[in-house]
Amino acid sequence: MPTYFTLRWQEPAALRMIDQRSLPHEVIYHDYYTHVEVAHAIHDMVVRGAPAIGVAAAYGLALAAFRSPADRVEELQQDLESAAQALANARPTAVNLFWAIQRIMKLVNSQAYATPDSLRHAILALAHQMAEEDVQTNKRIGLNGQAVVPAIAGIVHHCNTGALATVDYGTALGVIRTAHELGKQIHVYVDETRPRLQGARLTAWELKQLEIHHTVIVDGSSGFFMRQGKIQLCLVGCDRIAINGDTANKVGTYNLALAAAAHAIPFFVVGPTSTIDRNTSDGDHIPIEERPDEEITQIGGVQITPDSTPVSNPAFDVTPAKYITGIITEKGIARSPYRDTLEIWTR
Amino acid sequence: MPTYFTLRWQEPAALRMIDQRSLPHEVIYHDYYTHVEVAHAIHDMVVRGAPAIGVAAAYGLALAAFRSPADRVEELQQDLESAAQALANARPTAVNLFWAIQRIMKLVNSQAYATPDSLRHAILALAHQMAEEDVQTNKRIGLNGQAVVPAIAGIVHHCNTGALATVDYGTALGVIRTAHELGKQIHVYVDETRPRLQGARLTAWELKQLEIHHTVIVDGSSGFFMRQGKIQLCLVGCDRIAINGDTANKVGTYNLALAAAAHAIPFFVVGPTSTIDRNTSDGDHIPIEERPDEEITQIGGVQITPDSTPVSNPAFDVTPAKYITGIITEKGIARSPYRDTLEIWTR
Repeated sequence: MPTYFTLRWQEPAALRMIDQRSLPHEVIYHDYYTHVEVAHAIHDMVVRGAPAIGVAAAYGLALAAFRSPADRVEELQQDLESAAQALANARPTAVNLFWAIQRIMKLVNSQAYATPDSLRHAILALAHQMAEEDVQTNKRIGLNGQAVVPAIAGIVHHCNTGALATVDYGTALGVIRTAHELGKQIHVYVDETRPRLQGARLTAWELKQLEIHHTVIVDGSSGFFMRQGKIQLCLVGCDRIAINGDTANKVGTYNLALAAAAHAIPFFVVGPTSTIDRNTSDGDHIPIEERPDEEITQIGGVQITPDSTPVSNPAFDVTPAKYITGIITEKGIARSPYRDTLEIWTR
Repeated sequence: MPTYFTLRWQEPAALRMIDQRSLPHEVIYHDYYTHVEVAHAIHDMVVRGAPAIGVAAAYGLALAAFRSPADRVEELQQDLESAAQALANARPTAVNLFWAIQRIMKLVNSQAYATPDSLRHAILALAHQMAEEDVQTNKRIGLNGQAVVPAIAGIVHHCNTGALATVDYGTALGVIRTAHELGKQIHVYVDETRPRLQGARLTAWELKQLEIHHTVIVDGSSGFFMRQGKIQLCLVGCDRIAINGDTANKVGTYNLALAAAAHAIPFFVVGPTSTIDRNTSDGDHIPIEERPDEEITQIGGVQITPDSTPVSNPAFDVTPAKYITGIITEKGIARSPYRDTLEIWTR
């Protein structure tokens, strides 16, 4: 069983997070004391994965509350508004970040707390609750997903959606983990997931500790293995699901979905309902983060391309709903047409 | 204009080749004196690209001829049979290697040469001829390809098919080069091409010297750029074309073809007719080389995956003919159904 953790509150007021940039070679934890530090950690991808950055932001607001010298509730509210803005600016695509911030800020602005200290502790209690809910949500997702996982299956998985991408257990990798725990014979084809190699670095590391059979492959070879008959299922996570089912996820997901469609292999998106954005009508309205050139031009500090080669590095892509067989959440599995189900789930 | 060259005969008897493993950061040439050294250079991918390894093998046989101490034609023929076998074992997929060896061996076994020395010089003369033909073939391919290149086009290109993959000028990249020389406004989206990064390292380097606009992208993002409307054409090389049009090329080509098909973007295979194998009925009969794990687990000497992570590293994949819009050769552009045209071209 894994012995690592993604993030954990440290009394009296620090957020401890594993540095996902150093994995799998170094297991390092850092303590963060301010919301500004947490925002940087989210931006720099010390912590990544839509559910994990949502909870990290919630704890970031708890840190902001405890660091604020405000001695009136209104002052504390103002400080938290400013902190919420800073955290929301850390990354643009995963809606869980905004969902978590809004949930904390709803409490902040609820006027239910008479003193700054009572509000501070209420924020921390809610952040703890969100962290616990995330784990329970993932376990429900893991069970709900079993309806689509055969007893024997080769599964392509993209990016990382395990315990590291969440508070614990994982989303798409949680479905795989549950299948394994239930005795299903699973072999995971791990897309290495360029440019940041979350598959080769993080998913391979988690699967090794879970003792689940796996093979790391380059992203461009998934169709090759499908054509060989080795793949029966694709499971991926999600960073934002538009209300029509179009889904933003780590770049490379769309090409994988197209390969799956060409082979009539089921392609499921897996995530909590907090990833559904009822305010985004379709995938064309999901902002796509462009990340630094160096993620492509350098690997492990080694320069790959010629000097000053132009690159384009979108962190995410959008898979249109028509290529998605279903969306597995803690509330069940949505199927096309998605809008009705997703609207009910996000009411 | 480029000042580098892929391979060149050095009098009295050496083959000089650029080390493609060190590019773009170091431009190093090595001299090879025996066919065994050339076979290793092909296997280790000092030289790569189907047309280039064919000509390298031809020169490898010339080296074997000059190194052989045989003073009777029959002895020389035996030494060359053995050298041909060693060179043919260097890599399994690209048929140009076997085509070039067979062409030399046909001359070797023609009984048209009365003395070992006359045979030695005839072999070298044929190798020179094959090298010259390769350049002329590529220039014809470049012109033939213009029928499918719009005046303004975003083009996805996979792997490397430039001067480095050939004796000079290139195949798919030759079509792009000709388009640029004719004043067409081309922007090349360069698939980085994991695992060996031939796109990010070699194609970016060649395009920079040719002053052709380009952007390096990760392989998994081609669909993202297609969906954005930035791509009008896909051009790839080939390592073996079965007689029904199924084509083996660098791994990742098939996923690219599937993405192109989903967007109704023309997808053309580009190569000399020497890449067509009339003895291979379809793609299922093309042997696919499995290359060392380290090409995936390490990049530039830096370990990426956890220790002992299992990987699978097919060097090529097969794109079925139904996803190929056409095959651009020096003899013209073949269209579906391919068999009739390819049989005529390889008679």
